[in-house]
Order: sequence, then structure tokens, then C-alpha cells
Amino acid sequence: MPNTIDPALVSRSFQESIREQVHALGAPLRIVGVLANDDRAARVYAKYTRRGCENVGIDFELRECPRLELEAELQRINHDDAIHGVIVYYPIFGIERDNYLKDLVDPRKDIEGLTTHWVQKLYSNKRVDEQGNKAVLPCTPLAIIKLLEQAGAMNAEGAPLAGKTVTVFNRSEVVGRPLASMLANDGAHVFSFDEYGPLELDEHGIKETTITRAEALKQSNIIITGVPSKQFELVRADELPAASICLNFSTTRNFTDEAIEKASVFIPRVGPMTVTMVLRNALRLHSHYGNP
Amino acid sequence: MPNTIDPALVSRSFQESIREQVHALGAPLRIVGVLANDDRAARVYAKYTRRGCENVGIDFELRECPRLELEAELQRINHDDAIHGVIVYYPIFGIERDNYLKDLVDPRKDIEGLTTHWVQKLYSNKRVDEQGNKAVLPCTPLAIIKLLEQAGAMNAEGAPLAGKTVTVFNRSEVVGRPLASMLANDGAHVFSFDEYGPLELDEHGIKETTITRAEALKQSNIIITGVPSKQFELVRADELPAASICLNFSTTRNFTDEAIEKASVFIPRVGPMTVTMVLRNALRLHSHYGNP
Repeated sequence: MPNTIDPALVSRSFQESIREQVHALGAPLRIVGVLANDDRAARVYAKYTRRGCENVGIDFELRECPRLELEAELQRINHDDAIHGVIVYYPIFGIERDNYLKDLVDPRKDIEGLTTHWVQKLYSNKRVDEQGNKAVLPCTPLAIIKLLEQAGAMNAEGAPLAGKTVTVFNRSEVVGRPLASMLANDGAHVFSFDEYGPLELDEHGIKETTITRAEALKQSNIIITGVPSKQFELVRADELPAASICLNFSTTRNFTDEAIEKASVFIPRVGPMTVTMVLRNALRLHSHYGNP
Repeated sequence: MPNTIDPALVSRSFQESIREQVHALGAPLRIVGVLANDDRAARVYAKYTRRGCENVGIDFELRECPRLELEAELQRINHDDAIHGVIVYYPIFGIERDNYLKDLVDPRKDIEGLTTHWVQKLYSNKRVDEQGNKAVLPCTPLAIIKLLEQAGAMNAEGAPLAGKTVTVFNRSEVVGRPLASMLANDGAHVFSFDEYGPLELDEHGIKETTITRAEALKQSNIIITGVPSKQFELVRADELPAASICLNFSTTRNFTDEAIEKASVFIPRVGPMTVTMVLRNALRLHSHYGNP
């Protein structure tokens, strides 16, 4: 039986620490969620944000508006000193226009780490902003890094992932690509697969590679999947090395039962930790910028 | 027979004026095109950029690089004082990641007007930047506006398109959506159609509408199409009002022969004017920022 890590449990200890820090502020920390669609998953995410906020003592307000009024709502929020963070529940219009919307949030209130301001910092491995404050990282990739830490993947000394090889199946702009860069920034040797083929990253940069899935898996200490497609060939036990940490952040099953059995540690989902990282980012942005 | 406007001819007079202004600079104006793909259309566009530059006396250099080296190349260009503008030939990775790349260009060298810096100005109808310099507009929508001017669509006094109704079939982030906003900013009443349905814009904002295509077309002075799909039902003569200016910027045919016959003015394509607007933007950015 693998050692399964439950992200809800890991979340709990993170939230305890966040609660203490929020309490120590001695003043309200307030975030707004904006819902501008009828997406069921978005509504569930909003519910979990509220629950997480309540749990750590952050004030949460959900604002619902027609999608065409979202830009005006974001402007109001950006200019409202009593609001310290904002989370927008996507998808709204589709990838292209949603990407535009992401950049309308003031980076100092961007608790999801989705604005170009923060994303460029990540890809250029700038860990602090112009004022020397720690940069904000996108929530799901950050949640995955924290779960890998819990799984004992990180070195006690030196670069956290030096000497480790990681294979990631997913190179979306929201999770897979920033995650691959964050892993490489931490010293890992990363193979990133998507439907366009593999890329290879390390702390020195990124390059094309012709490695096969089988070769990449064979040498990987950590295997991360996020492929919400039935076309994806499940990762099998015979593809895994003797000891590996396996994590699936897709809503779809990406490993066979036997592969899960064989893994040293299996992390079946990430969701609860994503919400917790939103709270952590809210706290960080508040401590850096107060009322921007 | 409709009065057909040839964008290549219109381009010629614009380029003459640009050539005089470039000559008057008395110093080289230099732009770099970056080609990081094997796309045939991209290569053709690069060739036309070179030809346009040569024609107006702008120095043009084409740099080819593997797509994974594009970010580093853009950093070099941003920091090179001898380069005043850059144009990147998309698509490279796909919509999401290409959107990220667009924001790596220094806005002061963004002769395509694609960075969030300029796009946000457009959507908030801010016509000047923080220093009072005129904002840069995206090339294809700007080219369309200039062609409509040539077609006599604009009022001699007051807001250029006050009292005019325009229907646009296409709401892409690159052409249709910025174009609809630019038309509305100029006073037009705009119906914007795409596969997700119609929206309605005017100088006061944007709203959902249930208008049908037939109703929108019947009241339109200007009809603009850009639907590169065989599924699109061609605009027919019986849908057009008695006098209309019709423009198609798609590579696919979007009007029937009879509709083209019936139009007061027909503009069959935009391409050559797009290149000319790139040159115009290069000149504008150089005059505002010199060597940033």
C-alpha cells in the first residue's frame, strides 16, 4: 500500500498557522471573490474559498455580477482600500479574453498570482519584487510544491530539488508550465510533456528534447499528472521506478491502480491546498502592501 | 458595380507620408522582426514587413531563432537602444503561451500594439499615455479604421462615427474585439457577433443583446466580416440595407457576389494596410520615446 497524502489534512496545519498570523494582524484582512458566470465548478470553488476564509479569520465577500460588468467591478475593487485581495472565478468568456481580464487585477491584490506582473517574476526566477518583498506564486503550482515537501521530496540542504528528476504531464499556462519552472528553479531536472511533445528544463533554462515517455518516467523521482482526457494512456506500474512520489491534479484518473500501489507516496488531488495557498498569498500581499 | 477600395493603393499614399517623416528624422529608425516558427503565413508577413520598411526608409532586420530562445531574444531587443521597434510573427506555441510572450515586449517598442499596456488603454478609451503621448493602437483594427475613412464612412464634424451603426462578425482578441471598441469609442453603435452570440457597444459601454443577425444588418451603415470558417452563412444582398460599406478581413469569402454588387463600397481585404500601420506605429513610438 502506498503512503497516501490527503491534501485536506495538510491544509489543516497550514490553515492553523495562517489563522494565527491573521489574528496577529489585529485588523481585518478582507478579500472579495467575483463570480461572473454560471459555471458549477466555479461556484464550488467560491464556496471552498468562503469556508477557508472563515476558518482562518479572513473576511470573505462574494460578489456576483454579469460578465460584462466584471471589468467595472474589478476597477472598484482595485480602488477600494478596504479590500486586500481578489479572486475571480474562471472561465468567463474563454481563454483569450479571460487572459485579458486576469491582468486587470492590481498585482498587489492578486492573491491568485495570475497577473503578468507576477508570472514574469516566476519565469525569470525573480523571487522578490522591486521593493524586495517576496513574490507571489500561482496557487495550484504552489500547492503542489507544498504537497511534495510533505511527501519528503525536498533535500534538507542545498537547492530543494537538486539531483531530483521530475516528469510533469500537462503544460497549461495555469498549472503545468509554471509548475515545471518552479521545480526547475528549485534545482530539479524536469521533463514536461503535453500533446505537442516533451520539453526539458533545469535551473539553466529550457530546451527541446526527444526523450520518450518511458525513458523520462524510468529516471523520475517524482511524477505529476494533470491530463483531463480519456485519451491519456494511464501511467502504469511497469513504467515507474522502484521508489517514486506520484501526484495527480487532474479530475480524471491518470494512474492505474497498480501504479498507485507501487508508488512510495501517492497524492491523489490538490484542491484543498490550492484554496489554502490563496489564503497564504492574501496574507503575504497584505503584509507587503497593506492597503495599496 | 460597387466602388471597390484596394488597400494596396491606400497603403501607398500612407507610406509616402511615412517616408517623408522617416527621412525628416535624420537618423536611422530601426525595427527587428522575430521569426520563431515554421509558419508559412508568418514568413510571408515578415517578407511584407521588410518590403514596407524598405519602401519608407526604415531599417529592417529579420532574426530567426528557435522558439525556446525567443524570450532571451526579446530581452536583448528590449535592452538594445539601437532598436526602436519589434514585431513577432505568431503563432508560436498556441494562444495561451503566445499571450504571455506578447507581454514580454517593452511597450515603448511594441509597434503591433499587442502588450497589455496598450490594450488596456484602448479598452478604457485612454488616448494618451502617462506622459501625454498618443497611445498605440493594434495594427489590423487600426488599418480597418483607416480604410473606412477612405471609404467616406466618417463624419466631417463631431465624433467620426456618431449616428452610424456597424455590425462586426468576429470578436477575436486580436481584431474583432479591439475593433468594436475603437468603433464605439469613435461614436458608433456597434453589434458584435461571434459564435457565442451578439453584444452591443456604444461610447457608454457594452451590453448583452438578443438582436438577430438580420435585424442588425438591416440597420447597419457598415458591415465588417472576419470569419475564417466555411460554416459561416455568407452575408447576402437581401440582408444589406440600400447603402452600405462592406469590408471583409477574413482570408475566407464572407459575402455573396450579389452582396458585393449591392454594397456602396466594398473593401475585400486589409493586409497591406496592416503592414503600413506597423510602420506608422514604429514612427510614432520613435517620436515619443526615441531610444527608450
